[in-house]
Amino acid sequence: MAETSGFTHFDAAGRAVMVDVSDKAETERLATARGRVVMKAETLALIQAGQMGKGDVLGVARLAGIMAAKRTPDLIPLCHPLALTKVTVDLTCLPEDNAVEIEATAKLKGRTGVEMEALTAVSVAALTLYDMCKAVDKGMVIADIRLIAKDGGKSGPYRAETP
Amino acid sequence: MAETSGFTHFDAAGRAVMVDVSDKAETERLATARGRVVMKAETLALIQAGQMGKGDVLGVARLAGIMAAKRTPDLIPLCHPLALTKVTVDLTCLPEDNAVEIEATAKLKGRTGVEMEALTAVSVAALTLYDMCKAVDKGMVIADIRLIAKDGGKSGPYRAETP
Amino acid sequence: MAETSGFTHFDAAGRAVMVDVSDKAETERLATARGRVVMKAETLALIQAGQMGKGDVLGVARLAGIMAAKRTPDLIPLCHPLALTKVTVDLTCLPEDNAVEIEATAKLKGRTGVEMEALTAVSVAALTLYDMCKAVDKGMVIADIRLIAKDGGKSGPYRAETP
Amino acid sequence: MAETSGFTHFDAAGRAVMVDVSDKAETERLATARGRVVMKAETLALIQAGQMGKGDVLGVARLAGIMAAKRTPDLIPLCHPLALTKVTVDLTCLPEDNAVEIEATAKLKGRTGVEMEALTAVSVAALTLYDMCKAVDKGMVIADIRLIAKDGGKSGPYRAETP
Amino acid sequence: MAETSGFTHFDAAGRAVMVDVSDKAETERLATARGRVVMKAETLALIQAGQMGKGDVLGVARLAGIMAAKRTPDLIPLCHPLALTKVTVDLTCLPEDNAVEIEATAKLKGRTGVEMEALTAVSVAALTLYDMCKAVDKGMVIADIRLIAKDGGKSGPYRAETP
Amino acid sequence: MAETSGFTHFDAAGRAVMVDVSDKAETERLATARGRVVMKAETLALIQAGQMGKGDVLGVARLAGIMAAKRTPDLIPLCHPLALTKVTVDLTCLPEDNAVEIEATAKLKGRTGVEMEALTAVSVAALTLYDMCKAVDKGMVIADIRLIAKDGGKSGPYRAETP
Repeated sequence: MAETSGFTHFDAAGRAVMVDVSDKAETERLATARGRVVMKAETLALIQAGQMGKGDVLGVARLAGIMAAKRTPDLIPLCHPLALTKVTVDLTCLPEDNAVEIEATAKLKGRTGVEMEALTAVSVAALTLYDMCKAVDKGMVIADIRLIAKDGGKSGPYRAETP
Repeated sequence: MAETSGFTHFDAAGRAVMVDVSDKAETERLATARGRVVMKAETLALIQAGQMGKGDVLGVARLAGIMAAKRTPDLIPLCHPLALTKVTVDLTCLPEDNAVEIEATAKLKGRTGVEMEALTAVSVAALTLYDMCKAVDKGMVIADIRLIAKDGGKSGPYRAETP
Repeated sequence: MAETSGFTHFDAAGRAVMVDVSDKAETERLATARGRVVMKAETLALIQAGQMGKGDVLGVARLAGIMAAKRTPDLIPLCHPLALTKVTVDLTCLPEDNAVEIEATAKLKGRTGVEMEALTAVSVAALTLYDMCKAVDKGMVIADIRLIAKDGGKSGPYRAETP
Repeated sequence: MAETSGFTHFDAAGRAVMVDVSDKAETERLATARGRVVMKAETLALIQAGQMGKGDVLGVARLAGIMAAKRTPDLIPLCHPLALTKVTVDLTCLPEDNAVEIEATAKLKGRTGVEMEALTAVSVAALTLYDMCKAVDKGMVIADIRLIAKDGGKSGPYRAETP
Repeated sequence: MAETSGFTHFDAAGRAVMVDVSDKAETERLATARGRVVMKAETLALIQAGQMGKGDVLGVARLAGIMAAKRTPDLIPLCHPLALTKVTVDLTCLPEDNAVEIEATAKLKGRTGVEMEALTAVSVAALTLYDMCKAVDKGMVIADIRLIAKDGGKSGPYRAETP
Repeated sequence: MAETSGFTHFDAAGRAVMVDVSDKAETERLATARGRVVMKAETLALIQAGQMGKGDVLGVARLAGIMAAKRTPDLIPLCHPLALTKVTVDLTCLPEDNAVEIEATAKLKGRTGVEMEALTAVSVAALTLYDMCKAVDKGMVIADIRLIAKDGGKSGPYRAETP
């Protein structure tokens, strides 16, 4: 167990720090995260109906997720400010699961990974979807937000065991 | 199906709007949300060790959650800006579940509910916890973010069926 | 010429101030602003084609306008922070003018007017539209942003001479 | 018509994306935008009087424009976050036109253009000018906001036909 | 010693909270803070020369202070979001002390005090002044930032012993 | 005296600008700032007691300081947006001085110095400490905020005469 705790965001005395990444190489970093919002069948049907043209819930959630990725360093205390080079957020209706699946990818040429940006995009897209639909379904659940894949950086590629 | 869709955040033509709450009464609004971060047993043990004094992961996540509640209207496109009167975020280690449970409560004297503020606080506290621990456990999952209780406003009290 | 200058945002010595509105009544305030983006006929045709389902430029611009209304006090130095109760942004294609017209309305129960919120919503919706279309038409012009109507407050209703 | 629409901010399915600029070269990018605020002759006279020392409307608007350029990625949903290396905003009184002309220039060593930063600086300077003067002239019009020049990047230099 | 600590921002278990102000009365709250930036005589002379028309350091610092007062809840973790009704920032050159004195006043009709808003305005005005002058004087010191007066609220008026 | 004033943040006409750093080299920049909050002995004793586990004032202030360093370009009008690579904030109780000393260090590989980021971190940590303790001691004073050391960049290393 290196340092005090094994956690990189604390110094030897256990104090929170934004860790020094000055000496890391500027490489291409990529991360993909995924999550879902589980809801009533009727709610999902309403969302799908909206995709036909009136009331595009998924479009609003996608945009909120993209914008939130850019706010990550404002929200997550010890995240470094980053110049993201790409963000995508995709939302897919899964009628068999009564769920909307959300996947976000973030990309950077820089000194630190972009997992938090991808995870934040998924989270805020999910929150926005909840906000848009809460008048008809307060019991929706935001679930299974997790890192799916990560590339670039010293620690090498990561793939979730069960994507 | 009222309006186009049953969703309040769209007008009759299906266009996104921030709905008019001018005529709603200024009453006391309260909302509680809950969620959890599921992790390896070793990760949870490290977090618990940190609570003894060095490396307070939960303290950082709590603060991030409280601050995020205040940023909700910046993040969720159609949320109204609100003057929150109280925010609390509690994190509890659940060794039997290999999880940290997060509960947030938001309060307001105002014209609109504070569910989104409570849910945003839980989400950002969970993301911060992920950020602090990701060097030792990239497989953590943010799960079961949901509204537990809501009071005040025209629609009356709400309690989740399975809190 | 009252005070130094006739301008309310300066004190008697000509120094910028956020004026004191504590003694103003909390009344319903409403403001509507309008503007347009003038472009090539081909660009407008592309936007209209996108409305059929793929590439909803107007939907993105509408959302950006609504969100920007909430950021007005962050952008305009001497604007008061406000708890807006409603924001709408509408964009209409005007093929005869090779333009998209943008209209925004903001509403508040409060102590100060919401003209700046409506004007900011129009401006940022226009900028977003420019951003989305600039790869095909760099010569677009953002034009005629102006206050159309204002209600509430001591100074009484205002209507633009040529709406 | 490349892709779905010719618009770069949508993917093949018509979904909004922050486009991938990772592979673009880090070159010097420069953009200049211009616009104007048209007003009553008396309003312009008051602004000019203020420049003599008391009530510096143009100084406040200039600063608001510079600060807004930095907020561009927060405002424009699909803009990349950028590390601007220079921003200037100039405001000039044009008594013959009863207008204040605003010109902004933004500069970057980076992977994407800075048109939106220059246009946002002009827009927010114009809105600030409106805010400062609206007590004496609600009929002011923000007009002719456009890109004047753009240099750097793959698409080469751009000059407006009628600057 | 009430509660755990005498500090209101912690609950009985010592966890940080944004305290509940829902039951406080909406009264007029006023706070004034003061501070100074101490510098070389030459630096102060340059600032004073700028006030004659070219290079208005104090005007930029004043505006930054006013804008920062509005950002207080974004910066100070446990501060409530507030709808400030007035902010003023004054900067005075004190040649006898080789200093610029900064005084800020914030006002609110609301449920919580505005000390932090006044203190934040002074601090950011001081930082801005440092930024503007650091090329000629890196040894400037920001000093004596303190609350001068506070009115409104349950705890009654406060006056600093040595204003 | 170069230019109008010797101040780099004004152009030859005395207008505020964000100076052009495009041609500066991307080197490692480091800055350390320091300040203190002076208080009653009883207040300091309460803070120290909290460090034992309940009510961690210094932990909250440290986090607020780190987060504020990232907000520097939002707060200081003419600061460039930067991708900080490291931020640390340390707070030390000095019982002999009835004070808490705050030291912040900021680091960057970039084109401009990070003094303002370090000074802003100290200032906001100090303000947060004030906020946490103001219920027991309104007379606290934020004092002696100054640059201690600066490395990197064309102007070479700087060390305060009396650190």
